[in-house]
Amino acid sequence: MDDLVTFGETMLRFSPPDDERIETADEYRVHTAGAESNVAVAAQRLGLDAAWTSKLPDSPVARRVVGELRSHGVTVDPVWSDSGRQGTFYLETGDSPRGNTVIYDRTDAAVTTATPAELPVTRVENAAGFHTTGITPALSETLSETTAALLAAAQEAGTTTSFDCNYRSKLWSPDEARETLTGLLPDVDVFTIAERDARKVLDMSGESAAIATELSETYDLEVTVLTRGTDPALAVSGDAVYEQPTFESTDAHPIGTGDSFVGGFLSQYLDGQDIPAALEYAAATAAFKRTVPGDIAVVSPEEVESVIDGASAGISR
Amino acid sequence: MDDLVTFGETMLRFSPPDDERIETADEYRVHTAGAESNVAVAAQRLGLDAAWTSKLPDSPVARRVVGELRSHGVTVDPVWSDSGRQGTFYLETGDSPRGNTVIYDRTDAAVTTATPAELPVTRVENAAGFHTTGITPALSETLSETTAALLAAAQEAGTTTSFDCNYRSKLWSPDEARETLTGLLPDVDVFTIAERDARKVLDMSGESAAIATELSETYDLEVTVLTRGTDPALAVSGDAVYEQPTFESTDAHPIGTGDSFVGGFLSQYLDGQDIPAALEYAAATAAFKRTVPGDIAVVSPEEVESVIDGASAGISR
Amino acid sequence: MDDLVTFGETMLRFSPPDDERIETADEYRVHTAGAESNVAVAAQRLGLDAAWTSKLPDSPVARRVVGELRSHGVTVDPVWSDSGRQGTFYLETGDSPRGNTVIYDRTDAAVTTATPAELPVTRVENAAGFHTTGITPALSETLSETTAALLAAAQEAGTTTSFDCNYRSKLWSPDEARETLTGLLPDVDVFTIAERDARKVLDMSGESAAIATELSETYDLEVTVLTRGTDPALAVSGDAVYEQPTFESTDAHPIGTGDSFVGGFLSQYLDGQDIPAALEYAAATAAFKRTVPGDIAVVSPEEVESVIDGASAGISR
Amino acid sequence: MDDLVTFGETMLRFSPPDDERIETADEYRVHTAGAESNVAVAAQRLGLDAAWTSKLPDSPVARRVVGELRSHGVTVDPVWSDSGRQGTFYLETGDSPRGNTVIYDRTDAAVTTATPAELPVTRVENAAGFHTTGITPALSETLSETTAALLAAAQEAGTTTSFDCNYRSKLWSPDEARETLTGLLPDVDVFTIAERDARKVLDMSGESAAIATELSETYDLEVTVLTRGTDPALAVSGDAVYEQPTFESTDAHPIGTGDSFVGGFLSQYLDGQDIPAALEYAAATAAFKRTVPGDIAVVSPEEVESVIDGASAGISR
Amino acid sequence: MDDLVTFGETMLRFSPPDDERIETADEYRVHTAGAESNVAVAAQRLGLDAAWTSKLPDSPVARRVVGELRSHGVTVDPVWSDSGRQGTFYLETGDSPRGNTVIYDRTDAAVTTATPAELPVTRVENAAGFHTTGITPALSETLSETTAALLAAAQEAGTTTSFDCNYRSKLWSPDEARETLTGLLPDVDVFTIAERDARKVLDMSGESAAIATELSETYDLEVTVLTRGTDPALAVSGDAVYEQPTFESTDAHPIGTGDSFVGGFLSQYLDGQDIPAALEYAAATAAFKRTVPGDIAVVSPEEVESVIDGASAGISR
Amino acid sequence: MDDLVTFGETMLRFSPPDDERIETADEYRVHTAGAESNVAVAAQRLGLDAAWTSKLPDSPVARRVVGELRSHGVTVDPVWSDSGRQGTFYLETGDSPRGNTVIYDRTDAAVTTATPAELPVTRVENAAGFHTTGITPALSETLSETTAALLAAAQEAGTTTSFDCNYRSKLWSPDEARETLTGLLPDVDVFTIAERDARKVLDMSGESAAIATELSETYDLEVTVLTRGTDPALAVSGDAVYEQPTFESTDAHPIGTGDSFVGGFLSQYLDGQDIPAALEYAAATAAFKRTVPGDIAVVSPEEVESVIDGASAGISR
Repeated sequence: MDDLVTFGETMLRFSPPDDERIETADEYRVHTAGAESNVAVAAQRLGLDAAWTSKLPDSPVARRVVGELRSHGVTVDPVWSDSGRQGTFYLETGDSPRGNTVIYDRTDAAVTTATPAELPVTRVENAAGFHTTGITPALSETLSETTAALLAAAQEAGTTTSFDCNYRSKLWSPDEARETLTGLLPDVDVFTIAERDARKVLDMSGESAAIATELSETYDLEVTVLTRGTDPALAVSGDAVYEQPTFESTDAHPIGTGDSFVGGFLSQYLDGQDIPAALEYAAATAAFKRTVPGDIAVVSPEEVESVIDGASAGISR
Repeated sequence: MDDLVTFGETMLRFSPPDDERIETADEYRVHTAGAESNVAVAAQRLGLDAAWTSKLPDSPVARRVVGELRSHGVTVDPVWSDSGRQGTFYLETGDSPRGNTVIYDRTDAAVTTATPAELPVTRVENAAGFHTTGITPALSETLSETTAALLAAAQEAGTTTSFDCNYRSKLWSPDEARETLTGLLPDVDVFTIAERDARKVLDMSGESAAIATELSETYDLEVTVLTRGTDPALAVSGDAVYEQPTFESTDAHPIGTGDSFVGGFLSQYLDGQDIPAALEYAAATAAFKRTVPGDIAVVSPEEVESVIDGASAGISR
Repeated sequence: MDDLVTFGETMLRFSPPDDERIETADEYRVHTAGAESNVAVAAQRLGLDAAWTSKLPDSPVARRVVGELRSHGVTVDPVWSDSGRQGTFYLETGDSPRGNTVIYDRTDAAVTTATPAELPVTRVENAAGFHTTGITPALSETLSETTAALLAAAQEAGTTTSFDCNYRSKLWSPDEARETLTGLLPDVDVFTIAERDARKVLDMSGESAAIATELSETYDLEVTVLTRGTDPALAVSGDAVYEQPTFESTDAHPIGTGDSFVGGFLSQYLDGQDIPAALEYAAATAAFKRTVPGDIAVVSPEEVESVIDGASAGISR
Repeated sequence: MDDLVTFGETMLRFSPPDDERIETADEYRVHTAGAESNVAVAAQRLGLDAAWTSKLPDSPVARRVVGELRSHGVTVDPVWSDSGRQGTFYLETGDSPRGNTVIYDRTDAAVTTATPAELPVTRVENAAGFHTTGITPALSETLSETTAALLAAAQEAGTTTSFDCNYRSKLWSPDEARETLTGLLPDVDVFTIAERDARKVLDMSGESAAIATELSETYDLEVTVLTRGTDPALAVSGDAVYEQPTFESTDAHPIGTGDSFVGGFLSQYLDGQDIPAALEYAAATAAFKRTVPGDIAVVSPEEVESVIDGASAGISR
Repeated sequence: MDDLVTFGETMLRFSPPDDERIETADEYRVHTAGAESNVAVAAQRLGLDAAWTSKLPDSPVARRVVGELRSHGVTVDPVWSDSGRQGTFYLETGDSPRGNTVIYDRTDAAVTTATPAELPVTRVENAAGFHTTGITPALSETLSETTAALLAAAQEAGTTTSFDCNYRSKLWSPDEARETLTGLLPDVDVFTIAERDARKVLDMSGESAAIATELSETYDLEVTVLTRGTDPALAVSGDAVYEQPTFESTDAHPIGTGDSFVGGFLSQYLDGQDIPAALEYAAATAAFKRTVPGDIAVVSPEEVESVIDGASAGISR
Repeated sequence: MDDLVTFGETMLRFSPPDDERIETADEYRVHTAGAESNVAVAAQRLGLDAAWTSKLPDSPVARRVVGELRSHGVTVDPVWSDSGRQGTFYLETGDSPRGNTVIYDRTDAAVTTATPAELPVTRVENAAGFHTTGITPALSETLSETTAALLAAAQEAGTTTSFDCNYRSKLWSPDEARETLTGLLPDVDVFTIAERDARKVLDMSGESAAIATELSETYDLEVTVLTRGTDPALAVSGDAVYEQPTFESTDAHPIGTGDSFVGGFLSQYLDGQDIPAALEYAAATAAFKRTVPGDIAVVSPEEVESVIDGASAGISR
């Protein structure tokens, strides 16, 4: 039995080295990147037995994805496909005022045709937790249905369901997203959403805590987590409201911060820790992630705890 | 007026460094690669004013393709598209018995929807030569029609048309290829084909020279060039049959050998040189290409002539 | 007809990777760098048809320069020489207190013997604009005369002439520079100079605006632009004085900031935009350049506009 | 239940890039390398469920070893230690007459204190096969005893035991090796040894087949495999003698050839294939390995079969 | 006669490039690093004739250490050993909150068995200065005795002895360190210690100047230097107390800052400059070091003076 | 007293990595390369106390040359100059038929103005041997005179003088070379020349041994060594003729083969070994060099002896 199963698309990410530009670089660094697999890796590294499933083309390119995830100890339970692409994206990073540019190249990815009949639903039903994000249903009509089916099956089986809104404006409009997401939320137990997405996508307004509370009540959520950039995160569970400030951190490698937050949270919450402890762990994992190249939080429990303890960043020797 | 216009898809090529594997490499070298643009670059570097046209997504990834082609002096006359991908492929090279592996990722490329109405047909009609290959019509139904239309327009306008069979088994079957190609050949003046493709795709048999002659007569070709691996190439023009041995060469960087051959040939043939001279130039360009990483023949006329002269490969200092 | 022709020396730049030192590095990154070609590239990328001319040794080293410039779409119209070197320089970058070190190695460069008779003067005369800098006449007596002749020919033909002082203390003394530059300025329409150079080289004093105005009147300039580091730039045209603050930016890649400023300015001014719009574009281009490795502003109009709009440097996805 | 468990030391390997020398290189490539884990990876990739166990220091350096092995799907079941080093070695490769140099740095490795009480003996007993090599007992007195105990436990439990002589002259003398190995062989089922080691270490002489037969009879072996460099390998099982020629291959990456041979053999033999089929698979895996950088055979069943089929090393596209 | 001889262990340092992690990196950058050799290099580059001695294994790995030190002009006078390792360490650097991680791998280093009988004691006795640190006696019992013997011999011979506390918590406890160090200090002339180590290891308290003064008096020191992070350093000599603020500097490459400080100090002090001048030189060398990758201060006297002069970090061209 | 002093120009060499072209590469590897310093390094590494002198610009670029030579233990005794360049060259390597291309960029090098008055002539006079090559007098009129003066001074002082013809067609014509070299030879004791240069430059003909003998007699040489590519080298001394076959070797890194030969020869000859032993050592050093990137023979006596012993190029472990 897995502690956590996650489902979604994982891509290869191509990034020019240093501050070079996509347009002129002669080599790209390759990383494995996907919101749901990022969560699985963080959770696995922080103590859970985590698994990730998806549908992948049977090629060395997709096996590169699988290998990198396995290297972190995650159980990979893939559906191999004869058709469909391995999704990729190009990431260019630059100092201000250039910023970070993401160019998705995920058209026709193999995962877009994944159906519950192909996927390891029993694994999901037997797991303690199941996690996916708002990216998955945005990828295709089929995936929208599959996401709903998996959440429903998990819920039915008593698996704790976790869902991160992860709104992507390059994939769908706020209206499209709202319609789909509000259909999924009744099957969700732990819901994480950036406050700006709650406002833009779910069309909510008012104070932060009020938003979280309204979400909690509307969808009968077990825990509602509102992330707020560098402002403290909020969690609402029943009547309780918890606040967790962010830990100070570099902005060197921001991609994957949110997934690390969720992975850190679930690593504690599914292990039976209380919400404040899980939130603190989440925030520390997210802060640490930002020091690590790539999308993935290559981190250990000791390192998360060291962030929480505010250990100096000096040289230990 | 251009000496040569070529049309086709150009991809980004991702290759692991050294002998590494796609599945385990952490960086990929990036090259620009396309049969028709490879020909344009070789021809430009060897003396022609060459242009390349295609349909490309409006993104830094596609602009990387354009920039690299321009760096060699080729005129790039692109159609920019709001939809469609930038095609890519993964190339892994290894010594024997591993060999070279190509994994295409060209689904839904922007070029697959290119129509004559979008493309610079007048430029083709005003050029001395026009070149495309059997890859282009294999990419989509639309491109099959566009290829036919461009060849017809060029032929009509008195532009010398050049066509390289370039059969790709990953794109279509021999039967599909044969049906399409035989429909195009009546509008072709200079036809290049590997002997093994003449046998496999065009279903021909008999001696090499007989095959070339039969092609020449059936399609009323100006020049028919039969390449034969490391065996001498053959050219038939009217009653004349010419034979050109290959120049000895490394097999370090074989991708693009055939395109360099055609580029070398056209650089001379369109410049008014006779067929034997053009064939010799073609063979020398191809031999030199095999020493250069990437798909493109980064070569100068002096270097081609040095291969022809059999200059020693010692150190000049 | 070109929108802009620039003339000057372009060098290969050798830089140790990361923060390494020239003295200990085992590899140098290679970039193409020259004040006038930097301006041509920026202007071309931002909308003009720009050309660059110079005199170059006929070698692969110089062809590397030509190829990189062409990759950005610039028309390169070179004079090839049998003698003279390809100029180079070594650039080492380091954080404070180390700073940046430039070691020129441009002795005996082929360009130092370039005469008007060799250069494409007609192209200059037919262009809308012509640009060179104070580096060019500093390189040799011959180049000093050639610079004067080209500016005079352009002026005579009605081409808008642009000149950037670009004082280099490693090439000549303030006195030498002053004598030469004051001889050239009567043929200049658009004059750009750093305020500190106006004071040090042209021996001017007083308030910034007064300096610009005095320059404008003394040399009957169309536009006088005074750059002032991180302080706002000033432009004087007739009686009007314009001020343009700098946009906040990293100092990661400062080399080429000034050239990008001029390229951005000319891209608008020669396109008929008014001076304030051109100044704003100049400042935004300069700010963006500082995020890009190398001397060249690899930038698009959309990116410049995004800097002007103050778009956040977050992740768009 | 695992199909195969292997036990031994796995090191980090540091190699200068290209043909550089250890003494002058400024960077070393890092690979994971160990005879027994190499076998586990090859067997896993070729179809078995393979596991590897060892004793490792609790540090990121050792976790790098674990991660790379896991990336290939191998189950890693480590004993973490508070003391002892992560063994490393330096490998320099050069063309002839330089050759390859290995400098071990494995003193005081954590594994040298591993006892059966710490190790997952039950896993070994439950597995279909168990494999270790002559390197392990050479590392310490404790390991010599542990190796004996594990082989005995496996044998007792009915697990097929496999042992590769792998004589290392930098670890012990032929006399020392002979004494230890002959004590272990009674508990071995599948014994692989290079013919030169049979002669030098086990002091045998005569024809190859006679040596294999004598070994087989003396130690009551199930299968005895004699590898003979580029000469055909021999296997003796009961009265039967099998011969398997090597497949032609590059010598670009020879380290790990023998381990790949054993991994390929066990992948078939433990899966119930007959000895000739297993030998052919072994030889093809070994040939393919030599094209792959590092110690590990990054290979798929299809690739092994393609070597067996003698598929050309051309470009498939 | 040398101006300065230093003695201690020098290691190879392995660092993942950029911000990568030890656990996932595929290559490590290699540097030469040792407190005492760092001092020798800085002193040599800043004007002294400096030598370094140690005991090293006779292998290319150790010769890499020797070669890098010699490249800076340092005289290397090694004892070559048939046994013992070349010590190494892994250094991972990351932005806050990750910080820098050092993993020593120096067990059983050849130097740990070095005795005065093997070492060039006469060279030490003939030198103007001798320097070692608190790391050396912490490495082994033998080295503790050897350190004492060398300091005593130097003192006896009239060589100025310099000692840097350099407390390393991974090597010994404060109690162990205190016992050893207090035994060595009577033979020390110039003692450098971080204030935090004076408090933690030597168990001192009170104001900074009082600590330095107490040390000076207790051990009859010629000069006592107290470094205090980014606070001003203090030096006490007789009754005089000197204060030297740090120069502002990046924290990009902090490892080796302290050694550069000592090297800069000794380069002046042993050359006859007064203490304030030597302190200022020390602080400027340390600030410059922090801009240079690796442990070693690749710096020139002109560069140190430029830091002292507060020269801007702009671009000189 | 040095065993060997060499004098000549040493350049920085810029090489594209892998098989890339100068024209398209984005980074160049940097090596230190000069015929005379190559000889000094080989001789030093093989047992002599060798020194190298030259005149160098006072810049980090030249200090990089000095540092690399010192890293091999060579004593560097430079004359620092305020003017003149650090010579460089570009080296591109490619498989056949591309070959190796050298583009010198040594115009106006600081060394071209070196006079005996500046150089350490006393060091030359006190040395056991002095070596320079035909490159040095080809670089400038001044150097031609300086070379003559140094050879004469050495000869006068009883220093054994060694001279390698090293004809460079990019520096002077055979006629020019002949006139100068024949003027120098009377002061030469050990003369090395490629047979093809003896024919082309010195206008000699006949059998190899006859050429060597004629040279020996005409110029009263102590030893005359004729290298003959892959054919055996010949040495004539008095009436004796010695022949030394080449050792089989890769052609991966041929640059510097000849210098390694001379360095290997002198390391033995100046140490008192007889000519056959010195020739064998020379040939083995040259063979080994060809496996090492760069111009310099990074080699040890053990490695040379291993080539002589014909040790297999297998893996020692």
